[in-house]
Amino acid sequence: MRIHLQNQPNDRLFDFSHAMWDEAAVRAGETGHQVTIGTTVADFTSAMTTAEALVCDASVIKARFPCPAPHLRFIFATNAGLDRLAPYDWLPPGAILMNNRGTHAAKAGEFALMAVLMLANRIPEMVTHQRAGRWEKLWGATLAARRITIVGLGALGGTLAGHAARFGMPVTGVRNTAAPHPDCARVLTMEALDSVLPETDILVLACPLTARTRGLMDRNRLSALPAGAGLVNIGRGELLDQDALCDLLESGHIGAAVLDVFTPEPIPEGHRLWSTPNVIISPHTSADDPATYNPRSLDIFLANLRAHRDGKPLPNQFDIARGY
Amino acid sequence: MRIHLQNQPNDRLFDFSHAMWDEAAVRAGETGHQVTIGTTVADFTSAMTTAEALVCDASVIKARFPCPAPHLRFIFATNAGLDRLAPYDWLPPGAILMNNRGTHAAKAGEFALMAVLMLANRIPEMVTHQRAGRWEKLWGATLAARRITIVGLGALGGTLAGHAARFGMPVTGVRNTAAPHPDCARVLTMEALDSVLPETDILVLACPLTARTRGLMDRNRLSALPAGAGLVNIGRGELLDQDALCDLLESGHIGAAVLDVFTPEPIPEGHRLWSTPNVIISPHTSADDPATYNPRSLDIFLANLRAHRDGKPLPNQFDIARGY
Repeated sequence: MRIHLQNQPNDRLFDFSHAMWDEAAVRAGETGHQVTIGTTVADFTSAMTTAEALVCDASVIKARFPCPAPHLRFIFATNAGLDRLAPYDWLPPGAILMNNRGTHAAKAGEFALMAVLMLANRIPEMVTHQRAGRWEKLWGATLAARRITIVGLGALGGTLAGHAARFGMPVTGVRNTAAPHPDCARVLTMEALDSVLPETDILVLACPLTARTRGLMDRNRLSALPAGAGLVNIGRGELLDQDALCDLLESGHIGAAVLDVFTPEPIPEGHRLWSTPNVIISPHTSADDPATYNPRSLDIFLANLRAHRDGKPLPNQFDIARGY
Repeated sequence: MRIHLQNQPNDRLFDFSHAMWDEAAVRAGETGHQVTIGTTVADFTSAMTTAEALVCDASVIKARFPCPAPHLRFIFATNAGLDRLAPYDWLPPGAILMNNRGTHAAKAGEFALMAVLMLANRIPEMVTHQRAGRWEKLWGATLAARRITIVGLGALGGTLAGHAARFGMPVTGVRNTAAPHPDCARVLTMEALDSVLPETDILVLACPLTARTRGLMDRNRLSALPAGAGLVNIGRGELLDQDALCDLLESGHIGAAVLDVFTPEPIPEGHRLWSTPNVIISPHTSADDPATYNPRSLDIFLANLRAHRDGKPLPNQFDIARGY
């Protein structure tokens, strides 16, 4: 197959290389493909005249499509959340869009567990005290004493549910269907979210941004959490009302937050988030480990190619109607 | 037995109550003891005329002993590290001193895992950027990519070793004897510490403070860690040269630190630690969960009484020669 890997013009840390491809091809038993790697617009345009498959970051897709790509059948975006590509009318007719779900599970799962531990141990408040040069004893708790609700049980939320359950936390999962999950004591549908908020010590947002989840945690829902509750957001900034969150952190109703995603990104200089108390700001890197990102991405891409050749469903095919 | 529980005059959060005792006595099958609870100096002095066993914080022992206590046979300090009680010449002749090792394992183990995750995810540096209102992408890694060395394999270090191993970390343990530990890939003696420092991405100090460990991580040893290494201290502040650590954090040779213990405590106002970059300051509360601390302590105390009655070694007897 004619496969093109397009690197971003200004992100050497996440560049694909031919050596990386060759190793992945050997791992997958998929040697023999014709592979090009490009960086410039000219590289891209030239490759699209013959490429059957494209692997690149969503920002490349956003910048270059629609464009002439007569043979293109597979587009593999190296991101999990593709919300910024909606609506998907730029997709060449007949081409299959895939996302990179699964790549992030290990790294994001560890980050999420860390965030939950930081809330249970009251690190965000300690950091606020530290900023003021103030010593004040603050007592945390073990995870088993905290009720966690995880919105979204995909690769990120599902991995966290496993970690949380192993530490004895009673885990409530919330997703589109109430199908059971092995690491959740119970799973509720999105419609039941309101009922569980008052019983939630730590709320984790780990769902994709779709028309349905945009603004999910509005001011009313954030206020429905019990006083002192903690919040983790590793989904998208637009899942919540960020101003309401800042207000509630300032009033103390929300005890602390660990956030990896924001509206907008980067957070502008002088933005109120920088001085909001009891919040930890991670610069949207929770899910990405540069040392393993590209090799894992290629493994997933090649597994999908194999599935297609075997006539099986593609595990990473993006569902445009659902938006994830 | 005549047992006296002495609360501290100013720490209601960790007070013993009769209800707490009664529940523990039922759990242990140890009902029938004569138990008093006191807070004032007068309570203490009066109780010591008849008490056979005393349960209290080390600060009470420090303040009250030596004192007349003609029947006292057991002193159970509700702390693990009793370094501040050295030398132990205040101990009434024939009385057995016990510490509270074991109580802290769950809470401190979770705190230590959190600290290690924070280093792998570069949270201390993110917090330094946040303090300056600066958005800068920083990339972390999964735990499996980091080499951890844990000094001390007691309740704290041993519990952390288990967590770290479950996340795929290659764990090196360092302790007085090189006896193997089920969660360590290798165990070295203290004498071999120098050899492992250059191969350590994350160093965790979880050992007691003794004549042997005081100043263990001096400037030379801290400098022997590879550039960018992370450090966690949940032992005692005096285990390391705090000024050297601040220097090395400022120069960037040590990438980040998560510290729960300091010299002195509380950290004075205006101390350089408050403005040292890439350090997270926890106010010596990592090991203590108020909701479970006293019940666990009483369970451990009663298990030791039972062992004594059965003629078995006391699991928590403090070894004055070793200092832990």
